[in-house]
Amino acid sequence: MADDPRLTSLAAALPATVPFTGPETLERRAGCAFAARLGANESGWGPSPAAIAAMQTAAATAWRYGDPEFHDLRAALADHHGTTPAHVMPGEGIDGLLGLLVRLTLAPSDVAVMSAGAYPTFAFHVAGFGARAETVPYAGHHEDVDALLAAAQRTGAKLLYLANPDNPMGTWHAAATILRLIDRLPAHSLLVLDEAYADFAPAGAVPHIDPADPRVIRLRTFSKAHGLAGLRVGYAIGPATLLSAFDRVRNHFGLGLIAQAGALAALGDPAWLAHVVTETARARHRIATLGRDHGLAPIPSATNFVTLDCGSAAIAARTLAALATRGVFIRKPMVAPLDRCIRITAGPPPALDILAAVLPPALAQARTQS
Amino acid sequence: MADDPRLTSLAAALPATVPFTGPETLERRAGCAFAARLGANESGWGPSPAAIAAMQTAAATAWRYGDPEFHDLRAALADHHGTTPAHVMPGEGIDGLLGLLVRLTLAPSDVAVMSAGAYPTFAFHVAGFGARAETVPYAGHHEDVDALLAAAQRTGAKLLYLANPDNPMGTWHAAATILRLIDRLPAHSLLVLDEAYADFAPAGAVPHIDPADPRVIRLRTFSKAHGLAGLRVGYAIGPATLLSAFDRVRNHFGLGLIAQAGALAALGDPAWLAHVVTETARARHRIATLGRDHGLAPIPSATNFVTLDCGSAAIAARTLAALATRGVFIRKPMVAPLDRCIRITAGPPPALDILAAVLPPALAQARTQS
Repeated sequence: MADDPRLTSLAAALPATVPFTGPETLERRAGCAFAARLGANESGWGPSPAAIAAMQTAAATAWRYGDPEFHDLRAALADHHGTTPAHVMPGEGIDGLLGLLVRLTLAPSDVAVMSAGAYPTFAFHVAGFGARAETVPYAGHHEDVDALLAAAQRTGAKLLYLANPDNPMGTWHAAATILRLIDRLPAHSLLVLDEAYADFAPAGAVPHIDPADPRVIRLRTFSKAHGLAGLRVGYAIGPATLLSAFDRVRNHFGLGLIAQAGALAALGDPAWLAHVVTETARARHRIATLGRDHGLAPIPSATNFVTLDCGSAAIAARTLAALATRGVFIRKPMVAPLDRCIRITAGPPPALDILAAVLPPALAQARTQS
Repeated sequence: MADDPRLTSLAAALPATVPFTGPETLERRAGCAFAARLGANESGWGPSPAAIAAMQTAAATAWRYGDPEFHDLRAALADHHGTTPAHVMPGEGIDGLLGLLVRLTLAPSDVAVMSAGAYPTFAFHVAGFGARAETVPYAGHHEDVDALLAAAQRTGAKLLYLANPDNPMGTWHAAATILRLIDRLPAHSLLVLDEAYADFAPAGAVPHIDPADPRVIRLRTFSKAHGLAGLRVGYAIGPATLLSAFDRVRNHFGLGLIAQAGALAALGDPAWLAHVVTETARARHRIATLGRDHGLAPIPSATNFVTLDCGSAAIAARTLAALATRGVFIRKPMVAPLDRCIRITAGPPPALDILAAVLPPALAQARTQS
C-alpha cells in the first residue's frame, strides 16, 4: 500500500512497526484467550480497592473533562515526593511523557543514547521525531553505565536514557552508581531516568535526587505496582523549567477525569501498594525457583518480573511460543544477546499455578524442536 | 524563568499559552465551585447508563493495558459507519488525533488553513510542529468556504480545517456545500472535517462521504453527545493509507481499558444518544429564548450550545465575567469579530434554571459597567 502523498518526508520514512504487539492480538490470532497473562508486567493483584471505588464514582461524572492542570493529582504527587507541583508533570503514561520529552528536546539528527535492547518505546519516539538512538551493549545483565556515558560524550547526546531498575532484565544499579552517573554526565546531556519499577526496588537502589536538579528527569507510573496499566497515568519529576515546557505541546485534556481520580486514590492507599510489593516478591521467588528447577537461570530482579536465561535465543523463542500455545502469555527481550532470555511477570498464585503446570512440557517441547 | 537549554529551537520558540483554561482553574482562583457548568460543551445529561456500568466493571480490571489495536471498538465504529476497521482510527480525543495528523502531514513552514477564531487546539498543534496557520475571517456567523478554498489554493496548504457544525458559532453548512468544497479542494490539500457536533446536526447538514475518499479525514468524538468528555475518546474516519500512518507515531497504549469499554458501550446505546439529542434541542431553545428575552441575539445552532450575540466584545466579556461571579461557567469566542458573542452549553433544566436566574442581573451589570 503506497503511502499517503501528504505525509512529511519524516513520517513517510518511518517504519510501520509498533513497539509491542498486544496480548489481545495474539489471542485473536490463536482464537482463544490466555489463561495466564504474565507478559506485560501488569499487576494481577489489581488496583487498590480505594482506586476502584474512586474510578467507579468518577464514571458517573465522566461527562466532565478532567482538570487540564491536574491540580489535585499534581499536588498529591508533589507532597508524596516532598517537592512542589512545579516539579511534577502527570501525563498519559511514561510512554506519552517520553514522547513529549523527545519532541521537546530532540531535533532531527540529534542523538539519544540508550542500551541495545532497552525500552523499545523510547527508541520508537526518538525515531519518530527524526532523531537517532545510539545504543551500547549491556554489560552482562546490567545496563553499562560507563559505556552509556562514553557514548553520550562521544555523540554529543542530548538525552541519556536509563531504566533503574532495568527492563527487560530486571537488574538494578545501586543508588550511588546512579548518582555517580549524574555527576559524570556531559553538560549537553539530560539523564532520562525511567523509574517505572522503583516501587519494587530494594532499599539502596533508588537514589534521592533533588527534583530541581537540571541534569535529570525521572519517570514514574501507576501502571505497575499501583495496578493501573489500563488507566495510563504516569508522571515526570524534574526541573520546573523543563516540565513547564510540556505545557507548550501536551494534549491538555488527555488525562481524563477517571484517570485522575483513580491515580489520586491509588496514591492515597500505601497499604495496598505495600501488599502488592510483598506479594510480588513472593511471586518473584516462586518464578525464580520454578525456572531453576527446570534448568533456566533466574536473573536477580528488582522489578515485578523475573528474567530467566534459557541459554540460547532459539530455545527462548520456542519456549515463549510453547507457553503461548498452552495459554500463558509472556514476553522476551528482543535484542541479542538479551534475547536468550524470557521475561515472566510476577503474578498471583492462580496464574503461577498455571505457569508451573505448563512450563515443564513447554520447555521439553522447546528443547527437542530444532 | 529562562528556558531549559536543551529544548529544540522550535520548542524554545513556542509560546507558553495553552488552548483553554479549565473551569477548575477558574474555580480555584475564585475560591468556589461553579453552580452551573455551561462552558465546555459537555453533556450534563451524562453518559449512557450502559456506558457507566461498563466503565465501572472495567475499573476492577484496569490492571490490564487496553488493547493497543482497539480491535473491538474499531470494529464497532466501522460497523456503525458502514465501513471497515482500516478506515477508522480511535485516539485520545479529537485533540490527540489532530496532534497526530498535524505531526504526520505538516513539516516546519508547511501551511494549514482555518477560520480566524475556529478551534484553537488545531492552531495550537499547527504552531507546535512549526507549521503556519493561515486564517480567513468568518463570513458573518459562518465559516467562509470560498475564502478557505482560495487561501488553500494561494498558500499551497496541506490541510484545510473546517468544523461542521461549527464551533464556536454553532452554525452549519448544508451537506451539499461540504461536498462542493471537497470537489473544489486543491490537489495538495486534505480536508480536516471536524464533526465533533455532528450528532446534534439537523438532517441534511452531515454529508455522506466515502471513508476511502483520499481528500478528506473526518473527526468524531465521544466527548459531546455521548457525554464522555472525561474519558477522552475520539476517532478519525478516512483513507486507510493515511490512518495506517498513525500507527507509526501514536501512543499505542494511550487509550486505556476503561476508555475503550466506555466508548464501546456508549456506541451500543443509541436510545440514550437520541434522548440526549432531544433534550439538547429543548435546552437550546430555552437558551435562545432566554437570550432573546434579554436583548441577546441567538445564532441558530446545530450543536449542543447556543452562541448569543451581545453586540460588543466589551459587553460579551463583562457578561462572561458577571456570570462567573454568579456561579455560571460559560465561554466565549476569542477572536474578533466573533468575540462580541458568548457561548452557552445546552444543559439540563436545573443548570438552565440557575442561568435564567442570574443572566438578568449579570447583563445589567455588564451593560452599566464601562
